[in-house]
Amino acid sequence: MQIAVLTFEGFNELDSFVAAGILNRMKTAGWAAHITSPSARVTSMNGVTVESQKPLEFAEEADAVLIGSGMLTRDIAADETLLSRIRLDPSRQLIGAQCSGTLLLAKLGLVGDLPACTDLTTRPWVIEAGVKVVDRPFIAHGNVATAGGCLASQYLAAWMIARGRSLQAAQAALHYVAPVGEKAVYVERAMAAVSPFLRSDLTASAENA
Amino acid sequence: MQIAVLTFEGFNELDSFVAAGILNRMKTAGWAAHITSPSARVTSMNGVTVESQKPLEFAEEADAVLIGSGMLTRDIAADETLLSRIRLDPSRQLIGAQCSGTLLLAKLGLVGDLPACTDLTTRPWVIEAGVKVVDRPFIAHGNVATAGGCLASQYLAAWMIARGRSLQAAQAALHYVAPVGEKAVYVERAMAAVSPFLRSDLTASAENA
Repeated sequence: MQIAVLTFEGFNELDSFVAAGILNRMKTAGWAAHITSPSARVTSMNGVTVESQKPLEFAEEADAVLIGSGMLTRDIAADETLLSRIRLDPSRQLIGAQCSGTLLLAKLGLVGDLPACTDLTTRPWVIEAGVKVVDRPFIAHGNVATAGGCLASQYLAAWMIARGRSLQAAQAALHYVAPVGEKAVYVERAMAAVSPFLRSDLTASAENA
Repeated sequence: MQIAVLTFEGFNELDSFVAAGILNRMKTAGWAAHITSPSARVTSMNGVTVESQKPLEFAEEADAVLIGSGMLTRDIAADETLLSRIRLDPSRQLIGAQCSGTLLLAKLGLVGDLPACTDLTTRPWVIEAGVKVVDRPFIAHGNVATAGGCLASQYLAAWMIARGRSLQAAQAALHYVAPVGEKAVYVERAMAAVSPFLRSDLTASAENA
């Protein structure tokens, strides 16, 4: 699985790197999560400049795409030229959006009438974009998932691994990153968040196919 | 508070960025956490290249220092020239080490006989370096704290904010990054991890002063 972690100017480091770090635990299985950006370099909301690993157009060929979050998402959502560079296809890709990434997901027409998650700050703008926001950390419909709150990015990663590989692989990846002495609790809570969406997801994606 | 987040070649993104991201929630209070590295650029264990915000020598002048983790920490721990560039003073600085960062903390002579936390992979090397490792996510002695497991970095950040500002500020920063619908649980667990070390810390740091 090649995964594009969409990371824009003003990005929130937690939203891109927690998910990417967990997904890259699957390296030995041939997975790779790539920081994917509109330009060669992007600078975070806290002034950290990172070099992009893939151009934005990579999203189209990736097996899975995570849309990160940041403090400039409203500007990005209004930038038609930039949005037109992001071509996603939920019939063949797993797609996740984190926090304000849900706003971009909505602008790309991938939310529709279904309830979605986002963070408390972005919430009013996502609602304004016509999305039904739910107060939970994670939700998935078929191949499209959304998460709200920076650290809920672990659930997006867990869902992607469970869907792309196995529940056991997702548990192992989360076990590794969880705090020592709290690993069982973390794995259990993540599984509680994503498990309800695994069987129905598989059904829904089969229907979409 | 100016905080150096020591980030070396081969760094683990979660260990540097979760803590830095949470600490930078204190921006409006004048705090800043800086990615602090031995060279102008460092590349993570997953191939992400970031530009350093401060040189390694900044650690000496910072109010607080977090030692990040990575896959090359054993090499760094054997590099006397590099270690000599890190000058820390726990009598006037808050110092935290994350996962394999505990090995560097030990090499810098800042652990001594006191129990410390680290991750499960680094554990044997930290024990080999003479450290008493405990199976918990977080522990602090005076102004020096250690954490084990990538996501325990939230506890290092919470401890630093609680020590440098207030418990309320630490709770607010954690509340922001926690998953939607699980915010109370996250804040509560973080407070349970760090609170026992706040009063005794203050006593211990008063003793050290």
